[in-house]
Amino acid sequence: MFIFNHQLRVRYGDTDQMGYVYYGNYPYYYEQARAEAIRSLGFSYKQLEAVGIIMPVTRMNIKYIKPALYDDLLTIRTIIPSLPNRIIIFQYEILNPQNELINQGENHLIFVEAKTGKIKSAPELLVNSLKLYF
Amino acid sequence: MFIFNHQLRVRYGDTDQMGYVYYGNYPYYYEQARAEAIRSLGFSYKQLEAVGIIMPVTRMNIKYIKPALYDDLLTIRTIIPSLPNRIIIFQYEILNPQNELINQGENHLIFVEAKTGKIKSAPELLVNSLKLYF
Amino acid sequence: MFIFNHQLRVRYGDTDQMGYVYYGNYPYYYEQARAEAIRSLGFSYKQLEAVGIIMPVTRMNIKYIKPALYDDLLTIRTIIPSLPNRIIIFQYEILNPQNELINQGENHLIFVEAKTGKIKSAPELLVNSLKLYF
Amino acid sequence: MFIFNHQLRVRYGDTDQMGYVYYGNYPYYYEQARAEAIRSLGFSYKQLEAVGIIMPVTRMNIKYIKPALYDDLLTIRTIIPSLPNRIIIFQYEILNPQNELINQGENHLIFVEAKTGKIKSAPELLVNSLKLYF
Repeated sequence: MFIFNHQLRVRYGDTDQMGYVYYGNYPYYYEQARAEAIRSLGFSYKQLEAVGIIMPVTRMNIKYIKPALYDDLLTIRTIIPSLPNRIIIFQYEILNPQNELINQGENHLIFVEAKTGKIKSAPELLVNSLKLYF
Repeated sequence: MFIFNHQLRVRYGDTDQMGYVYYGNYPYYYEQARAEAIRSLGFSYKQLEAVGIIMPVTRMNIKYIKPALYDDLLTIRTIIPSLPNRIIIFQYEILNPQNELINQGENHLIFVEAKTGKIKSAPELLVNSLKLYF
Repeated sequence: MFIFNHQLRVRYGDTDQMGYVYYGNYPYYYEQARAEAIRSLGFSYKQLEAVGIIMPVTRMNIKYIKPALYDDLLTIRTIIPSLPNRIIIFQYEILNPQNELINQGENHLIFVEAKTGKIKSAPELLVNSLKLYF
Repeated sequence: MFIFNHQLRVRYGDTDQMGYVYYGNYPYYYEQARAEAIRSLGFSYKQLEAVGIIMPVTRMNIKYIKPALYDDLLTIRTIIPSLPNRIIIFQYEILNPQNELINQGENHLIFVEAKTGKIKSAPELLVNSLKLYF
């Protein structure tokens, strides 16, 4: 299992008139967290795109437990629970500054050759860098 | 079962560099669609807030089937599959201009008294206006 | 002078915890309004891109006069004050449901050949369709 | 003159199908930068709101010079050019990873008592913390 923690701060523009982070901002938070998780492996999502692989999201599940608030410094724990093959799964747990679990989510992403639109297996570079953790 | 169709057009700012609608924009589309679905019942989400009820989202599931593209006029079908009680469920089906199903989603929302933070049952106004459909 | 009115409804996700439309959402509203203004001329921004022209924004000025509120049906008046040459200017006036002027803005956009990155003059198609108004 | 540098990373969701950061995301970047600029003075915008002061934006000017790209680590220089009175002015200069100036902007914000809606002068706390720099 691969785990990575990333911190980010809630922007004013992320809140809504309830005074909570709007529910549509969590996918953005997840994206930031998984980009940093991949970077911690020694390369970047940008590099994957540069070699012609795009990674569209095919599934998302979110459980909203407690609201996040303006200016909260959130901790997003990204978990890759299994070695990717045709699909890579990212799970997320968000903790607020009081260390309470406020949000849980999951994404499935696939690997697509940008030129042809064909679904591919996970790039070796990514699989190899994750093997250490499994 | 209650069903309502709403149309909206994809904005340039909704796309990402893959040329697709960014996966984080669908929750915004769902919100627009369910606000119009409620309006079609003869009142508005705004009016519910005006009498002190807020409706935070507690769950979201999304299945991304095909990409939506810039300037697409999308049809969002909102379904309320059962009479709300402590929870109201909204299901969504998004069709592209070629009438293909490109996205499916679901939200759970709860009813909270804004002043006290207490979870309530669905307001009678909402339940009564939906009873016709069940 | 070319003038076009477009209506759009404020989304919940557009508000912030002040209860106002967040100041960063107005550029999105402007984009929607100018896309519809162009469409009213008989073609679309999407078609311009399809023939290899992209139109990056080079300037924006905004004057925030009064807040826009959740669920407001806003009227956005888009004005093209002069025939485009190397630059096209769009001006915007936003009216709230009480018909008050709440926001004024302006954008400059240029015409760039997507392949080469070269700055071009306004496409003839666009200039010709606007000539009627000047 | 008060100057503060803040770094942030461009998210995938911030790009559009041109492959550039969408022009409507810069106000969000400005907000992040000025929040951190205020924090560097020893308090936070959140604390100002907690004592009943909200700070709506009344003006924005942006000059888009070069595109920002996905995953760029941007440096945003926030400048407060003069002591605030009825208005506080923030100026921004954004540098890309190649240290090129890609964007310049300015915001005017006012001070409003949340309860009454009355326009106020800048809170003493803010003015005093800035006096050192002028």
